[in-house]
Amino acid sequence: MNPMFDRIAFIGIGLIGSSLARVIKKDGLAGHVAVCTRSQETLSKAEELGLGDSYVRDPAQAVLQADLVIICTPLSAYETVAKTIAPALQDECIVTDVGSVKGSVIAELKSHLPNSVHLVPGHPVAGTEHSGPEFGSGSLFEGRWCILTPEEETSQAAVDKVAGLWRAAGCDVEILDPDYHDLVLALTSHLPHLIAYSIVDTATCLEKDLMGEVIKFSAGGFRDFTRIAGSDPVMWRDVFVKNREAVLEVLGRFTEDLTALQRAIRRGEGEQLLEVFSRTREVRREVINAKQA
Amino acid sequence: MNPMFDRIAFIGIGLIGSSLARVIKKDGLAGHVAVCTRSQETLSKAEELGLGDSYVRDPAQAVLQADLVIICTPLSAYETVAKTIAPALQDECIVTDVGSVKGSVIAELKSHLPNSVHLVPGHPVAGTEHSGPEFGSGSLFEGRWCILTPEEETSQAAVDKVAGLWRAAGCDVEILDPDYHDLVLALTSHLPHLIAYSIVDTATCLEKDLMGEVIKFSAGGFRDFTRIAGSDPVMWRDVFVKNREAVLEVLGRFTEDLTALQRAIRRGEGEQLLEVFSRTREVRREVINAKQA
Repeated sequence: MNPMFDRIAFIGIGLIGSSLARVIKKDGLAGHVAVCTRSQETLSKAEELGLGDSYVRDPAQAVLQADLVIICTPLSAYETVAKTIAPALQDECIVTDVGSVKGSVIAELKSHLPNSVHLVPGHPVAGTEHSGPEFGSGSLFEGRWCILTPEEETSQAAVDKVAGLWRAAGCDVEILDPDYHDLVLALTSHLPHLIAYSIVDTATCLEKDLMGEVIKFSAGGFRDFTRIAGSDPVMWRDVFVKNREAVLEVLGRFTEDLTALQRAIRRGEGEQLLEVFSRTREVRREVINAKQA
Repeated sequence: MNPMFDRIAFIGIGLIGSSLARVIKKDGLAGHVAVCTRSQETLSKAEELGLGDSYVRDPAQAVLQADLVIICTPLSAYETVAKTIAPALQDECIVTDVGSVKGSVIAELKSHLPNSVHLVPGHPVAGTEHSGPEFGSGSLFEGRWCILTPEEETSQAAVDKVAGLWRAAGCDVEILDPDYHDLVLALTSHLPHLIAYSIVDTATCLEKDLMGEVIKFSAGGFRDFTRIAGSDPVMWRDVFVKNREAVLEVLGRFTEDLTALQRAIRRGEGEQLLEVFSRTREVRREVINAKQA
Protein backbone atom coordinates (compact mmCIF):
# COMPACT_ATOMS: atom_id res chain seq x y z
CA MET A 1 0.00 0.00 0.00
CA ASN A 2 1.23 3.53 -0.77
CA PRO A 3 1.74 5.56 2.39
CA MET A 4 -1.35 7.69 3.13
CA PHE A 5 0.87 10.37 4.66
CA ASP A 6 4.47 11.41 4.10
CA ARG A 7 5.23 12.22 7.69
CA ILE A 8 3.05 11.70 10.74
CA ALA A 9 3.95 13.25 14.09
CA PHE A 10 2.58 11.82 17.32
CA ILE A 11 2.54 14.35 20.15
CA GLY A 12 2.17 12.09 23.17
CA ILE A 13 1.97 8.33 22.80
CA GLY A 14 -0.05 6.46 25.42
CA LEU A 15 -2.48 3.57 25.01
CA ILE A 16 -4.39 5.11 22.10
CA GLY A 17 -1.48 6.75 20.29
CA SER A 18 0.70 3.68 20.48
CA SER A 19 -2.13 1.47 19.23
CA LEU A 20 -2.57 3.70 16.20
CA ALA A 21 1.19 3.89 15.66
CA ARG A 22 1.30 0.08 15.58
CA VAL A 23 -1.31 0.06 12.79
CA ILE A 24 0.57 2.75 10.84
CA LYS A 25 3.90 0.92 11.09
CA LYS A 26 2.42 -2.50 10.30
CA ASP A 27 0.54 -1.33 7.22
CA GLY A 28 3.12 1.22 6.06
CA LEU A 29 0.62 4.08 6.19
CA ALA A 30 3.28 6.79 6.62
CA GLY A 31 6.65 7.46 5.02
CA HIS A 32 7.99 8.56 8.40
CA VAL A 33 6.58 8.47 11.94
CA ALA A 34 7.96 11.04 14.39
CA VAL A 35 7.22 10.34 18.05
CA CYS A 36 7.33 13.10 20.64
CA THR A 37 6.70 12.77 24.38
CA ARG A 38 7.37 15.10 27.26
CA SER A 39 8.88 12.40 29.44
CA GLN A 40 12.17 10.77 28.45
CA GLU A 41 11.01 7.52 30.04
CA THR A 42 7.95 7.20 27.81
CA LEU A 43 10.02 8.22 24.79
CA SER A 44 12.56 5.47 25.49
CA LYS A 45 9.74 2.97 25.91
CA ALA A 46 8.26 4.02 22.54
CA GLU A 47 11.66 3.61 20.94
CA GLU A 48 12.13 0.15 22.47
CA LEU A 49 8.72 -0.81 21.10
CA GLY A 50 9.75 0.49 17.67
CA LEU A 51 6.65 2.66 17.35
CA GLY A 52 8.25 5.35 15.19
CA ASP A 53 11.19 6.31 12.97
CA SER A 54 12.40 9.27 15.00
CA TYR A 55 12.04 10.24 18.65
CA VAL A 56 12.25 13.75 20.06
CA ARG A 57 11.08 15.61 23.15
CA ASP A 58 10.43 18.94 21.42
CA PRO A 59 6.96 19.05 19.80
CA ALA A 60 8.02 21.86 17.42
CA GLN A 61 10.82 19.69 16.08
CA ALA A 62 8.55 16.65 15.75
CA VAL A 63 5.99 18.41 13.54
CA LEU A 64 8.50 19.88 11.04
CA GLN A 65 7.47 18.81 7.50
CA ALA A 66 4.62 16.68 8.93
CA ASP A 67 1.46 16.44 6.81
CA LEU A 68 -0.41 14.89 9.76
CA VAL A 69 -0.04 15.74 13.45
CA ILE A 70 -1.89 13.55 15.96
CA ILE A 71 -2.21 14.98 19.47
CA CYS A 72 -2.44 12.10 21.96
CA THR A 73 -1.64 13.91 25.21
CA PRO A 74 -3.99 14.42 28.16
CA LEU A 75 -6.45 17.23 27.41
CA SER A 76 -4.80 19.60 29.85
CA ALA A 77 -1.68 19.69 27.67
CA TYR A 78 -3.49 20.68 24.45
CA GLU A 79 -3.12 24.42 24.83
CA THR A 80 0.63 24.26 25.47
CA VAL A 81 1.08 21.79 22.63
CA ALA A 82 -0.85 24.00 20.20
CA LYS A 83 1.17 27.09 21.20
CA THR A 84 4.44 25.20 20.83
CA ILE A 85 3.80 23.58 17.47
CA ALA A 86 1.96 26.48 15.80
CA PRO A 87 5.06 28.27 14.38
CA ALA A 88 6.55 24.99 13.11
CA LEU A 89 3.52 23.61 11.23
CA GLN A 90 3.75 23.58 7.46
CA ASP A 91 0.85 24.96 5.39
CA GLU A 92 -1.97 22.49 4.67
CA CYS A 93 -0.84 20.22 7.49
CA ILE A 94 -3.72 18.30 9.09
CA VAL A 95 -3.93 18.42 12.88
CA THR A 96 -6.08 15.84 14.64
CA ASP A 97 -6.37 14.40 18.14
CA VAL A 98 -7.81 11.43 20.03
CA GLY A 99 -9.28 13.23 23.05
CA SER A 100 -12.45 12.20 24.87
CA VAL A 101 -13.83 15.75 25.00
CA LYS A 102 -14.28 17.92 21.95
CA GLY A 103 -16.12 21.25 22.40
CA SER A 104 -13.94 23.13 24.87
CA VAL A 105 -10.64 21.71 23.68
CA ILE A 106 -11.34 22.50 20.02
CA ALA A 107 -11.75 26.13 21.05
CA GLU A 108 -8.38 25.99 22.82
CA LEU A 109 -6.64 24.45 19.82
CA LYS A 110 -8.25 26.86 17.35
CA SER A 111 -7.13 29.91 19.25
CA HIS A 112 -3.47 28.93 18.78
CA LEU A 113 -3.23 27.05 15.48
CA PRO A 114 -2.63 29.04 12.25
CA ASN A 115 -5.43 29.23 9.66
CA SER A 116 -3.19 27.57 7.11
CA VAL A 117 -3.66 24.12 8.75
CA HIS A 118 -6.70 21.85 8.77
CA LEU A 119 -8.07 20.95 12.20
CA VAL A 120 -10.00 17.62 12.16
CA PRO A 121 -10.72 16.67 15.79
CA GLY A 122 -11.21 12.96 16.41
CA HIS A 123 -12.12 10.51 19.15
CA PRO A 124 -11.78 6.75 18.76
CA VAL A 125 -14.28 5.20 21.20
CA ALA A 126 -12.00 2.43 22.37
CA GLY A 127 -9.64 1.76 25.21
CA THR A 128 -8.81 -0.36 28.19
CA GLU A 129 -8.14 0.49 31.82
CA HIS A 130 -4.41 0.33 31.14
CA SER A 131 -2.35 3.34 30.21
CA GLY A 132 1.04 3.75 28.58
CA PRO A 133 2.48 2.78 25.17
CA GLU A 134 3.36 -0.75 26.27
CA PHE A 135 -0.34 -1.65 26.56
CA GLY A 136 -1.25 -0.55 23.04
CA SER A 137 -2.48 -3.04 20.48
CA GLY A 138 -2.94 -2.87 16.73
CA SER A 139 -6.36 -4.52 17.10
CA LEU A 140 -7.72 -2.08 19.71
CA PHE A 141 -9.84 -0.20 17.17
CA GLU A 142 -11.31 -3.12 15.25
CA GLY A 143 -15.09 -2.86 15.11
CA ARG A 144 -15.10 0.33 17.19
CA TRP A 145 -16.35 3.77 16.23
CA CYS A 146 -14.16 6.78 15.61
CA ILE A 147 -16.02 10.08 15.89
CA LEU A 148 -14.76 13.11 13.95
CA THR A 149 -16.04 16.59 14.80
CA PRO A 150 -14.80 18.97 12.06
CA GLU A 151 -16.40 22.34 11.47
CA GLU A 152 -18.58 22.70 8.37
CA GLU A 153 -16.03 24.85 6.57
CA THR A 154 -13.19 22.35 7.09
CA SER A 155 -11.64 20.93 3.91
CA GLN A 156 -13.48 17.74 2.97
CA ALA A 157 -10.23 16.30 1.63
CA ALA A 158 -8.62 16.69 5.06
CA VAL A 159 -11.60 15.06 6.80
CA ASP A 160 -11.50 12.20 4.28
CA LYS A 161 -7.81 11.60 4.91
CA VAL A 162 -8.26 11.36 8.68
CA ALA A 163 -11.34 9.16 8.23
CA GLY A 164 -9.32 6.93 5.89
CA LEU A 165 -6.63 6.47 8.51
CA TRP A 166 -9.16 5.36 11.14
CA ARG A 167 -10.88 3.05 8.67
CA ALA A 168 -7.50 1.48 7.98
CA ALA A 169 -7.24 0.85 11.74
CA GLY A 170 -10.56 -1.02 11.64
CA CYS A 171 -12.93 1.74 12.80
CA ASP A 172 -16.28 2.83 11.48
CA VAL A 173 -16.25 6.61 11.22
CA GLU A 174 -19.05 8.96 12.25
CA ILE A 175 -19.20 12.75 11.95
CA LEU A 176 -20.83 14.52 14.90
CA ASP A 177 -21.28 18.04 16.20
CA PRO A 178 -18.72 18.57 19.00
CA ASP A 179 -21.28 19.52 21.66
CA TYR A 180 -23.49 16.57 20.78
CA HIS A 181 -20.43 14.32 21.00
CA ASP A 182 -19.70 15.70 24.45
CA LEU A 183 -23.26 15.02 25.66
CA VAL A 184 -23.39 11.47 24.30
CA LEU A 185 -19.97 10.59 25.66
CA ALA A 186 -20.79 12.20 29.01
CA LEU A 187 -23.42 9.51 29.35
CA THR A 188 -21.72 6.51 27.71
CA SER A 189 -18.24 7.05 29.07
CA HIS A 190 -17.67 9.95 31.46
CA LEU A 191 -20.56 9.24 33.86
CA PRO A 192 -19.78 5.49 34.07
CA HIS A 193 -16.19 6.35 34.95
CA LEU A 194 -17.21 8.94 37.52
CA ILE A 195 -19.57 6.48 39.18
CA ALA A 196 -16.99 3.72 39.19
CA TYR A 197 -14.42 6.05 40.73
CA SER A 198 -16.98 7.15 43.29
CA ILE A 199 -18.12 3.70 44.42
CA VAL A 200 -14.56 2.43 44.68
CA ASP A 201 -13.69 5.54 46.66
CA THR A 202 -16.60 4.82 48.99
CA ALA A 203 -14.85 1.52 49.70
CA THR A 204 -11.50 3.19 50.39
CA CYS A 205 -13.13 5.23 53.14
CA LEU A 206 -14.34 2.14 55.04
CA GLU A 207 -12.86 0.80 58.21
CA LYS A 208 -9.84 -1.38 57.46
CA ASP A 209 -11.49 -4.75 58.33
CA LEU A 210 -14.52 -4.11 56.19
CA MET A 211 -12.29 -2.96 53.33
CA GLY A 212 -10.49 -6.31 53.46
CA GLU A 213 -13.78 -8.17 53.08
CA VAL A 214 -14.82 -5.89 50.23
CA ILE A 215 -11.68 -6.81 48.29
CA LYS A 216 -12.13 -10.49 49.11
CA PHE A 217 -15.73 -10.66 47.96
CA SER A 218 -15.40 -8.26 45.05
CA ALA A 219 -16.44 -10.87 42.46
CA GLY A 220 -20.10 -9.99 43.02
CA GLY A 221 -19.92 -6.87 40.84
CA PHE A 222 -17.51 -4.52 42.61
CA ARG A 223 -14.46 -5.86 40.78
CA ASP A 224 -15.89 -4.64 37.44
CA PHE A 225 -16.02 -1.14 38.91
CA THR A 226 -12.46 -1.39 40.22
CA ARG A 227 -11.34 -2.21 36.69
CA ILE A 228 -12.92 0.98 35.35
CA ALA A 229 -11.67 2.95 38.37
CA GLY A 230 -8.14 1.74 37.59
CA SER A 231 -8.03 4.02 34.53
CA ASP A 232 -5.49 6.80 34.12
CA PRO A 233 -6.16 9.46 36.80
CA VAL A 234 -4.72 12.40 34.84
CA MET A 235 -6.66 11.60 31.68
CA TRP A 236 -9.90 11.37 33.63
CA ARG A 237 -9.31 14.46 35.74
CA ASP A 238 -8.95 16.36 32.47
CA VAL A 239 -12.14 14.85 31.02
CA PHE A 240 -14.20 16.08 33.96
CA VAL A 241 -12.59 19.51 33.99
CA LYS A 242 -13.02 19.96 30.23
CA ASN A 243 -16.53 18.48 29.87
CA ARG A 244 -18.00 19.97 33.01
CA GLU A 245 -21.36 21.15 31.67
CA ALA A 246 -22.36 17.92 29.93
CA VAL A 247 -21.16 15.75 32.82
CA LEU A 248 -23.13 17.79 35.36
CA GLU A 249 -26.20 17.55 33.10
CA VAL A 250 -26.17 13.74 32.83
CA LEU A 251 -25.12 13.39 36.45
CA GLY A 252 -28.26 15.31 37.38
CA ARG A 253 -30.43 12.92 35.39
CA PHE A 254 -28.68 9.90 36.88
CA THR A 255 -29.11 11.17 40.43
CA GLU A 256 -32.84 11.69 39.89
CA ASP A 257 -33.24 8.14 38.58
CA LEU A 258 -31.15 6.66 41.39
CA THR A 259 -33.17 8.58 43.96
CA ALA A 260 -36.37 7.13 42.50
CA LEU A 261 -34.92 3.62 42.88
CA GLN A 262 -33.83 4.43 46.43
CA ARG A 263 -37.38 5.53 47.24
CA ALA A 264 -38.78 2.31 45.75
CA ILE A 265 -36.39 0.26 47.90
CA ARG A 266 -37.26 2.19 51.05
CA ARG A 267 -40.98 1.71 50.40
CA GLY A 268 -40.56 -1.95 49.39
CA GLU A 269 -42.07 -1.30 45.95
CA GLY A 270 -40.92 -4.50 44.27
CA GLU A 271 -43.08 -4.06 41.18
CA GLN A 272 -41.44 -0.76 40.30
CA LEU A 273 -37.97 -2.26 40.74
CA LEU A 274 -38.94 -5.22 38.55
CA GLU A 275 -40.19 -2.89 35.82
CA VAL A 276 -36.91 -0.92 35.74
CA PHE A 277 -34.70 -4.03 35.90
CA SER A 278 -36.66 -5.61 33.05
CA ARG A 279 -36.36 -2.70 30.65
CA THR A 280 -32.64 -2.28 31.26
CA ARG A 281 -32.21 -5.89 30.11
CA GLU A 282 -33.56 -4.80 26.74
CA VAL A 283 -30.77 -2.20 26.44
CA ARG A 284 -28.22 -4.96 26.96
CA ARG A 285 -29.72 -6.81 24.00
CA GLU A 286 -29.43 -3.69 21.84
CA VAL A 287 -25.76 -3.26 22.77
CA ILE A 288 -25.12 -6.89 21.83
CA ASN A 289 -27.02 -6.44 18.54
CA ALA A 290 -24.94 -3.34 17.78
CA LYS A 291 -21.83 -5.52 18.25
CA GLN A 292 -20.45 -3.24 20.97
CA ALA A 293 -20.76 -5.77 23.83
CA MET B 1 -14.73 -40.65 45.48
CA ASN B 2 -17.44 -41.83 47.91
CA PRO B 3 -20.57 -39.75 47.62
CA MET B 4 -20.61 -36.99 50.24
CA PHE B 5 -24.40 -37.19 50.44
CA ASP B 6 -26.92 -39.96 49.79
CA ARG B 7 -29.56 -37.78 48.28
CA ILE B 8 -29.36 -34.09 47.40
CA ALA B 9 -32.50 -32.15 46.47
CA PHE B 10 -32.24 -28.93 44.45
CA ILE B 11 -35.24 -26.66 44.95
CA GLY B 12 -34.91 -24.33 41.96
CA ILE B 13 -32.08 -24.74 39.47
CA GLY B 14 -30.90 -21.57 37.74
CA LEU B 15 -27.37 -20.43 36.95
CA ILE B 16 -25.96 -21.17 40.42
CA GLY B 17 -27.89 -24.37 41.15
CA SER B 18 -27.14 -25.89 37.77
CA SER B 19 -23.46 -25.05 38.10
CA LEU B 20 -23.29 -26.82 41.45
CA ALA B 21 -25.33 -29.76 40.09
CA ARG B 22 -22.79 -30.14 37.29
CA VAL B 23 -19.99 -30.42 39.86
CA ILE B 24 -21.97 -32.95 41.91
CA LYS B 25 -22.75 -35.13 38.90
CA LYS B 26 -19.27 -34.94 37.46
CA ASP B 27 -17.51 -35.86 40.72
CA GLY B 28 -20.18 -38.29 41.96
CA LEU B 29 -20.72 -36.32 45.17
CA ALA B 30 -24.28 -37.62 45.72
CA GLY B 31 -25.95 -41.02 45.43
CA HIS B 32 -29.00 -39.36 43.94
CA VAL B 33 -29.79 -35.82 42.80
CA ALA B 34 -33.44 -34.78 42.82
CA VAL B 35 -34.25 -31.63 40.86
CA CYS B 36 -37.37 -29.60 41.54
CA THR B 37 -38.52 -26.44 39.76
CA ARG B 38 -41.83 -24.63 39.74
CA SER B 39 -41.88 -24.20 35.96
CA GLN B 40 -42.22 -27.26 33.74
CA GLU B 41 -40.10 -25.53 31.09
CA THR B 42 -37.09 -25.15 33.39
CA LEU B 43 -37.57 -28.69 34.67
CA SER B 44 -37.49 -30.07 31.12
CA LYS B 45 -34.38 -28.02 30.40
CA ALA B 46 -32.68 -29.44 33.51
CA GLU B 47 -33.61 -32.95 32.42
CA GLU B 48 -32.26 -32.37 28.89
CA LEU B 49 -29.03 -31.14 30.45
CA GLY B 50 -28.90 -34.27 32.63
CA LEU B 51 -28.44 -32.27 35.82
CA GLY B 52 -30.15 -34.78 38.13
CA ASP B 53 -31.46 -38.30 38.54
CA SER B 54 -35.11 -37.45 39.16
CA TYR B 55 -37.23 -34.43 38.24
CA VAL B 56 -40.38 -33.31 40.02
CA ARG B 57 -42.39 -30.11 40.43
CA ASP B 58 -43.45 -30.71 44.02
CA PRO B 59 -40.78 -29.56 46.52
CA ALA B 60 -42.17 -31.85 49.27
CA GLN B 61 -41.70 -34.88 47.03
CA ALA B 62 -38.19 -33.77 46.02
CA VAL B 63 -36.89 -33.56 49.58
CA LEU B 64 -38.14 -37.00 50.74
CA GLN B 65 -35.19 -38.98 52.17
CA ALA B 66 -32.78 -36.16 51.25
CA ASP B 67 -29.83 -35.60 53.56
CA LEU B 68 -29.09 -32.26 51.84
CA VAL B 69 -31.59 -29.75 50.48
CA ILE B 70 -30.21 -26.80 48.49
CA ILE B 71 -32.62 -23.91 47.97
CA CYS B 72 -31.72 -22.12 44.72
CA THR B 73 -34.90 -20.16 44.07
CA PRO B 74 -35.26 -16.36 44.09
CA LEU B 75 -35.39 -15.06 47.66
CA SER B 76 -39.09 -14.21 47.44
CA ALA B 77 -39.93 -17.92 47.12
CA TYR B 78 -38.05 -18.99 50.28
CA GLU B 79 -40.97 -18.70 52.67
CA THR B 80 -43.30 -20.79 50.50
CA VAL B 81 -40.58 -23.35 49.87
CA ALA B 82 -39.85 -23.68 53.60
CA LYS B 83 -43.54 -24.11 54.45
CA THR B 84 -43.98 -26.72 51.72
CA ILE B 85 -40.94 -28.85 52.47
CA ALA B 86 -41.08 -28.65 56.30
CA PRO B 87 -43.38 -31.66 56.85
CA ALA B 88 -41.44 -33.82 54.37
CA LEU B 89 -37.90 -33.25 55.69
CA GLN B 90 -36.25 -36.17 57.42
CA ASP B 91 -34.57 -35.66 60.79
CA GLU B 92 -30.95 -34.46 60.66
CA CYS B 93 -31.38 -33.29 57.07
CA ILE B 94 -29.17 -30.31 56.22
CA VAL B 95 -30.90 -27.37 54.54
CA THR B 96 -28.74 -24.78 52.77
CA ASP B 97 -29.24 -22.12 50.11
CA VAL B 98 -27.28 -19.95 47.66
CA GLY B 99 -29.05 -16.63 48.17
CA SER B 100 -27.39 -13.22 48.00
CA VAL B 101 -29.03 -11.96 51.20
CA LYS B 102 -28.83 -13.77 54.51
CA GLY B 103 -30.22 -11.95 57.58
CA SER B 104 -33.89 -11.48 56.74
CA VAL B 105 -34.28 -14.69 54.74
CA ILE B 106 -32.70 -16.85 57.46
CA ALA B 107 -35.39 -15.56 59.81
CA GLU B 108 -38.06 -16.55 57.28
CA LEU B 109 -36.62 -20.03 56.81
CA LYS B 110 -36.19 -20.61 60.54
CA SER B 111 -39.77 -19.73 61.34
CA HIS B 112 -40.98 -22.62 59.15
CA LEU B 113 -38.32 -25.33 59.29
CA PRO B 114 -38.48 -27.98 62.04
CA ASN B 115 -35.83 -27.99 64.77
CA SER B 116 -34.81 -31.50 63.74
CA VAL B 117 -32.98 -30.20 60.64
CA HIS B 118 -29.69 -28.28 60.36
CA LEU B 119 -29.89 -24.90 58.66
CA VAL B 120 -26.54 -23.85 57.12
CA PRO B 121 -27.18 -20.77 54.96
CA GLY B 122 -24.69 -20.24 52.15
CA HIS B 123 -23.77 -17.76 49.44
CA PRO B 124 -21.25 -18.54 46.71
CA VAL B 125 -19.92 -15.16 45.52
CA ALA B 126 -19.90 -16.02 41.84
CA GLY B 127 -22.13 -15.58 38.85
CA THR B 128 -22.55 -14.06 35.43
CA GLU B 129 -25.19 -11.77 33.96
CA HIS B 130 -26.92 -14.81 32.44
CA SER B 131 -29.71 -16.70 34.16
CA GLY B 132 -31.16 -20.17 33.68
CA PRO B 133 -29.73 -23.71 33.99
CA GLU B 134 -28.37 -23.72 30.44
CA PHE B 135 -25.79 -21.07 31.35
CA GLY B 136 -24.37 -22.99 34.32
CA SER B 137 -20.80 -24.18 34.34
CA GLY B 138 -18.90 -26.62 36.52
CA SER B 139 -16.03 -24.16 36.71
CA LEU B 140 -18.09 -21.16 37.85
CA PHE B 141 -16.94 -21.47 41.47
CA GLU B 142 -13.25 -22.10 40.95
CA GLY B 143 -11.18 -19.64 42.98
CA ARG B 144 -14.31 -17.87 44.29
CA TRP B 145 -15.45 -17.50 47.89
CA CYS B 146 -18.44 -19.24 49.38
CA ILE B 147 -19.73 -17.57 52.54
CA LEU B 148 -21.59 -19.63 55.13
CA THR B 149 -23.59 -17.92 57.87
CA PRO B 150 -24.64 -20.60 60.38
CA GLU B 151 -25.73 -19.75 63.91
CA GLU B 152 -23.29 -20.53 66.71
CA GLU B 153 -25.38 -23.42 67.99
CA THR B 154 -25.56 -25.12 64.58
CA SER B 155 -23.99 -28.60 64.40
CA GLN B 156 -20.35 -28.27 63.37
CA ALA B 157 -20.63 -31.54 61.46
CA ALA B 158 -23.42 -30.08 59.32
CA VAL B 159 -21.42 -26.90 58.64
CA ASP B 160 -18.37 -29.00 57.72
CA LYS B 161 -20.38 -31.09 55.26
CA VAL B 162 -21.70 -28.01 53.44
CA ALA B 163 -18.25 -26.42 53.48
CA GLY B 164 -16.81 -29.64 52.04
CA LEU B 165 -19.27 -29.56 49.16
CA TRP B 166 -18.28 -25.99 48.23
CA ARG B 167 -14.60 -26.79 48.55
CA ALA B 168 -15.16 -29.69 46.16
CA ALA B 169 -16.64 -27.15 43.73
CA GLY B 170 -13.43 -25.10 43.93
CA CYS B 171 -14.46 -22.48 46.49
CA ASP B 172 -12.66 -21.10 49.49
CA VAL B 173 -15.10 -21.07 52.40
CA GLU B 174 -15.56 -18.28 54.92
CA ILE B 175 -17.87 -18.14 57.92
CA LEU B 176 -19.51 -14.75 58.53
CA ASP B 177 -22.22 -13.27 60.67
CA PRO B 178 -25.36 -12.89 58.50
CA ASP B 179 -25.76 -9.15 59.07
CA TYR B 180 -22.10 -8.49 58.38
CA HIS B 181 -22.43 -10.56 55.19
CA ASP B 182 -25.38 -8.41 54.16
CA LEU B 183 -23.46 -5.17 54.72
CA VAL B 184 -20.34 -6.31 52.85
CA LEU B 185 -22.36 -7.68 49.93
CA ALA B 186 -24.53 -4.56 49.84
CA LEU B 187 -21.35 -2.70 48.94
CA THR B 188 -19.56 -5.25 46.75
CA SER B 189 -22.55 -6.56 44.86
CA HIS B 190 -25.94 -4.99 45.54
CA LEU B 191 -24.92 -1.33 45.19
CA PRO B 192 -22.94 -1.95 41.96
CA HIS B 193 -25.97 -3.67 40.48
CA LEU B 194 -28.33 -0.91 41.61
CA ILE B 195 -26.10 1.74 40.08
CA ALA B 196 -25.73 -0.18 36.84
CA TYR B 197 -29.49 -0.63 36.58
CA SER B 198 -29.93 3.05 37.32
CA ILE B 199 -27.50 4.43 34.76
CA VAL B 200 -28.81 2.14 32.05
CA ASP B 201 -32.33 3.21 32.95
CA THR B 202 -31.25 6.84 32.63
CA ALA B 203 -30.36 5.98 29.05
CA THR B 204 -33.74 4.35 28.36
CA CYS B 205 -35.45 7.60 29.28
CA LEU B 206 -33.55 9.60 26.65
CA GLU B 207 -34.97 10.84 23.39
CA LYS B 208 -34.89 8.09 20.76
CA ASP B 209 -32.09 9.62 18.61
CA LEU B 210 -29.78 10.15 21.55
CA MET B 211 -30.50 6.61 22.77
CA GLY B 212 -29.34 5.27 19.40
CA GLU B 213 -26.02 7.10 19.76
CA VAL B 214 -25.64 5.85 23.32
CA ILE B 215 -25.91 2.24 22.14
CA LYS B 216 -23.56 2.92 19.24
CA PHE B 217 -20.84 4.48 21.36
CA SER B 218 -21.29 2.26 24.40
CA ALA B 219 -17.74 0.88 24.25
CA GLY B 220 -16.49 3.83 26.32
CA GLY B 221 -17.69 2.31 29.60
CA PHE B 222 -21.48 2.15 29.33
CA ARG B 223 -21.46 -1.34 27.84
CA ASP B 224 -19.92 -2.76 31.04
CA PHE B 225 -22.87 -1.35 32.96
CA THR B 226 -25.36 -2.81 30.46
CA ARG B 227 -23.81 -6.22 31.07
CA ILE B 228 -24.43 -5.94 34.81
CA ALA B 229 -27.89 -4.43 34.20
CA GLY B 230 -28.73 -7.45 32.04
CA SER B 231 -28.89 -9.64 35.17
CA ASP B 232 -32.04 -11.48 36.24
CA PRO B 233 -34.69 -8.86 37.21
CA VAL B 234 -36.59 -11.09 39.65
CA MET B 235 -33.48 -12.15 41.51
CA TRP B 236 -32.37 -8.55 41.90
CA ARG B 237 -35.77 -7.18 42.86
CA ASP B 238 -35.73 -9.71 45.69
CA VAL B 239 -32.22 -8.73 46.78
CA PHE B 240 -33.21 -5.08 47.21
CA VAL B 241 -36.47 -5.92 48.96
CA LYS B 242 -34.76 -8.37 51.35
CA ASN B 243 -31.61 -6.36 52.07
CA ARG B 244 -33.21 -2.96 52.30
CA GLU B 245 -31.46 -1.60 55.39
CA ALA B 246 -27.90 -2.43 54.34
CA VAL B 247 -28.48 -1.26 50.76
CA LEU B 248 -29.89 2.08 51.93
CA GLU B 249 -26.94 2.47 54.28
CA VAL B 250 -24.25 2.00 51.61
CA LEU B 251 -26.30 3.94 49.06
CA GLY B 252 -26.23 6.86 51.47
CA ARG B 253 -22.44 6.71 51.73
CA PHE B 254 -22.12 6.42 47.95
CA THR B 255 -24.37 9.42 47.34
CA GLU B 256 -22.33 11.55 49.72
CA ASP B 257 -19.11 10.63 47.95
CA LEU B 258 -20.61 11.19 44.50
CA THR B 259 -21.94 14.56 45.59
CA ALA B 260 -18.44 15.54 46.74
CA LEU B 261 -17.08 14.63 43.29
CA GLN B 262 -19.90 16.55 41.63
CA ARG B 263 -18.99 19.61 43.69
CA ALA B 264 -15.32 19.25 42.71
CA ILE B 265 -16.31 19.08 39.03
CA ARG B 266 -18.57 22.11 39.31
CA ARG B 267 -15.81 24.10 40.99
CA GLY B 268 -13.12 22.84 38.61
CA GLU B 269 -11.09 21.37 41.49
CA GLY B 270 -8.83 19.15 39.41
CA GLU B 271 -6.44 18.36 42.26
CA GLN B 272 -9.21 16.81 44.36
CA LEU B 273 -10.37 14.70 41.43
CA LEU B 274 -6.82 13.55 40.79
CA GLU B 275 -6.40 12.53 44.41
CA VAL B 276 -9.57 10.40 44.38
CA PHE B 277 -8.82 8.82 40.98
CA SER B 278 -5.30 7.95 42.15
CA ARG B 279 -6.32 6.18 45.33
CA THR B 280 -9.03 4.13 43.59
CA ARG B 281 -6.31 2.77 41.31
CA GLU B 282 -4.71 1.27 44.39
CA VAL B 283 -7.91 -0.66 45.15
CA ARG B 284 -7.76 -2.19 41.69
CA ARG B 285 -4.27 -3.48 42.48
CA GLU B 286 -5.53 -5.05 45.70
CA VAL B 287 -8.36 -6.83 43.86
CA ILE B 288 -5.84 -8.19 41.36
CA ASN B 289 -3.53 -9.29 44.18
CA ALA B 290 -6.45 -11.05 45.88
CA LYS B 291 -6.98 -12.96 42.60
CA GLN B 292 -10.56 -11.74 42.29
CA ALA B 293 -10.03 -9.60 39.16
